[in-house]
Amino acid sequence: MAESKVRTGLVNVYAQGATAGIMVQENWDQSVQNDVITLFNKLVPSGGWEHDHQDNNGDSHLKAGIVGPQETIPIVDGEMGLSTWQNIFLCEFDGPRSKRNVVVTILNSGK
Amino acid sequence: MAESKVRTGLVNVYAQGATAGIMVQENWDQSVQNDVITLFNKLVPSGGWEHDHQDNNGDSHLKAGIVGPQETIPIVDGEMGLSTWQNIFLCEFDGPRSKRNVVVTILNSGK
Amino acid sequence: MAESKVRTGLVNVYAQGATAGIMVQENWDQSVQNDVITLFNKLVPSGGWEHDHQDNNGDSHLKAGIVGPQETIPIVDGEMGLSTWQNIFLCEFDGPRSKRNVVVTILNSGK
Repeated sequence: MAESKVRTGLVNVYAQGATAGIMVQENWDQSVQNDVITLFNKLVPSGGWEHDHQDNNGDSHLKAGIVGPQETIPIVDGEMGLSTWQNIFLCEFDGPRSKRNVVVTILNSGK
Repeated sequence: MAESKVRTGLVNVYAQGATAGIMVQENWDQSVQNDVITLFNKLVPSGGWEHDHQDNNGDSHLKAGIVGPQETIPIVDGEMGLSTWQNIFLCEFDGPRSKRNVVVTILNSGK
Repeated sequence: MAESKVRTGLVNVYAQGATAGIMVQENWDQSVQNDVITLFNKLVPSGGWEHDHQDNNGDSHLKAGIVGPQETIPIVDGEMGLSTWQNIFLCEFDGPRSKRNVVVTILNSGK
């Protein structure tokens, strides 16, 4: 952010891969992160999906689809406009994996 | 929007705070808004979350995480490219509060 | 994308209409798409919503609200920065319809 010298604009954080997502969430401690995992396992149980016949990870795709691959966050005064407790999380729904690509794109509002 | 004189571009609406979200939804009357609250209380019941030991608002964070803090909406002919019934809602999952910051960022596509 | 000659930037794909959404998801075959429909019908059953008194499509609005009307995707080396299996889906939750408007907006990062 500092390197880009953009004062006002947008930063897009995008996870490449259809079984991961980007979520803005509190990171004061691990509790909310654990609760996110608990909730998604309850809402989207593993097993019984049509896609399981391919890769046995149908639930991973569905979780990623709900969370979505990206968030677009304002840049305010040269910094990300997150609030005190907001942070950006990569949600890995089909891991652990040795590698996940995340593309970060910065746009200047030109003002 | 009119003030910015941008004819084509994007407007990003971002809620600062990890227990609120931004949803595009119909606002013909209050019915869909009430249904959103009913649905989220059913999908994410309050109580029993690990984060409740901190702030007793684990469900608020989870709801906000699913909705997400932002939407990015096209600017078409100098106006927001919402359809007739689409409107932008701040979803307050941990209120009422006296204050919520929402950051609005406008980018010109330069065409 | 090729026509715009943008090498690095963002493309926003936005569905106009409060009963449709945009989801990035795998399209290797129809299985994940079918699973998405199965999941959303389970999480948001039709019938019993307050909005059903208006249009009998309360569940359609709720599904669209969770998925969201848009995704903003990076442009990398002049192409959409999707991974091998990621594709962009219009989720029609209140169809079939003869027409849905989708607005595509391209922004250049200017670098």
